[in-house]
Amino acid sequence: MTHLADKRIAILATDGYEDSELTRPLSELLKHEAAVDIISTEPGMITGKNGHEARVARTTADANAEDYDALVLPGGVANGDRIRLDEQAVSFTRSFFAQHKPVAAICHGGWILADADVLENRTVTSYPSLKTDLRNAGATWVDEEVVVDQGLVTSRTPDDLDAFCDKLIEEIAEGRHHGQTV
Amino acid sequence: MTHLADKRIAILATDGYEDSELTRPLSELLKHEAAVDIISTEPGMITGKNGHEARVARTTADANAEDYDALVLPGGVANGDRIRLDEQAVSFTRSFFAQHKPVAAICHGGWILADADVLENRTVTSYPSLKTDLRNAGATWVDEEVVVDQGLVTSRTPDDLDAFCDKLIEEIAEGRHHGQTV
Repeated sequence: MTHLADKRIAILATDGYEDSELTRPLSELLKHEAAVDIISTEPGMITGKNGHEARVARTTADANAEDYDALVLPGGVANGDRIRLDEQAVSFTRSFFAQHKPVAAICHGGWILADADVLENRTVTSYPSLKTDLRNAGATWVDEEVVVDQGLVTSRTPDDLDAFCDKLIEEIAEGRHHGQTV
Repeated sequence: MTHLADKRIAILATDGYEDSELTRPLSELLKHEAAVDIISTEPGMITGKNGHEARVARTTADANAEDYDALVLPGGVANGDRIRLDEQAVSFTRSFFAQHKPVAAICHGGWILADADVLENRTVTSYPSLKTDLRNAGATWVDEEVVVDQGLVTSRTPDDLDAFCDKLIEEIAEGRHHGQTV
């Protein structure tokens, strides 16, 4: 098993996240001995669309990408739609690309990548409703369970979680990727 | 009062619509004596996010823009996210532009306009989370309660419904607009 004992990972989400898309990456990362912080727009607890609750470690106002080795973006349409409205969440996300650090987005989690303006010439997948938005943001969109493009890991739905988690662990273990940039 | 007695209007929506963004335009159009059909992806009833129910007159597979004088696109994040996945809904929407007919979209209702590829050089507003997506689709995005651009009427949220309904009634009364095109 890969050890990520020296890694600290940020999961960025707000209310309405797809529960399994937060809990599965979280448990896989903890199993690989990574430290994980939930980052959100407000302090306290956030609630998934099916009722899971997660404690916020830091707000986007207080979080700094320099303190983390990678970023995970769960989906859920309401979560994906809301989190992109927070300018600090957008700049936090963009900083991981500027620092060449792995980013993993699933389902509706990828919308914020359009706002962060980091998709030019990258190959991604997502929940299919985002296809036009991600293409218009400069990406090549493909319909595959997981796409890995130099530190950027993307998947479509909760059905892809096995492949998504395997690849995000791999990319985080590898560390910084030159092609992961702004 | 403007009479729209010779007009037939399509409201395109699916489950998860913002109730007031369907019911207010519907009641205003009926008050102005227009005929109104709810168009959706499946036959039967559709349900708003707050529980309002509406009977579907025709499915997107059976509906033809030639039979209608204008199109209304209610919001609701789940509705806006789902309806754009239906290719027949996208081509139905695009046909109103090809036929120079008024289209009114509020809140998250405007996402499908990106898929329909009809926003190049048009000025619009929307729920603010769509700003990047509509800009990347070629639009100029502005933060106003209602924007009217040659037959294309757009608003941000339910708070804008008074202005939105006034302008959509005006544009429908005027009929076809040369600048409303693909």
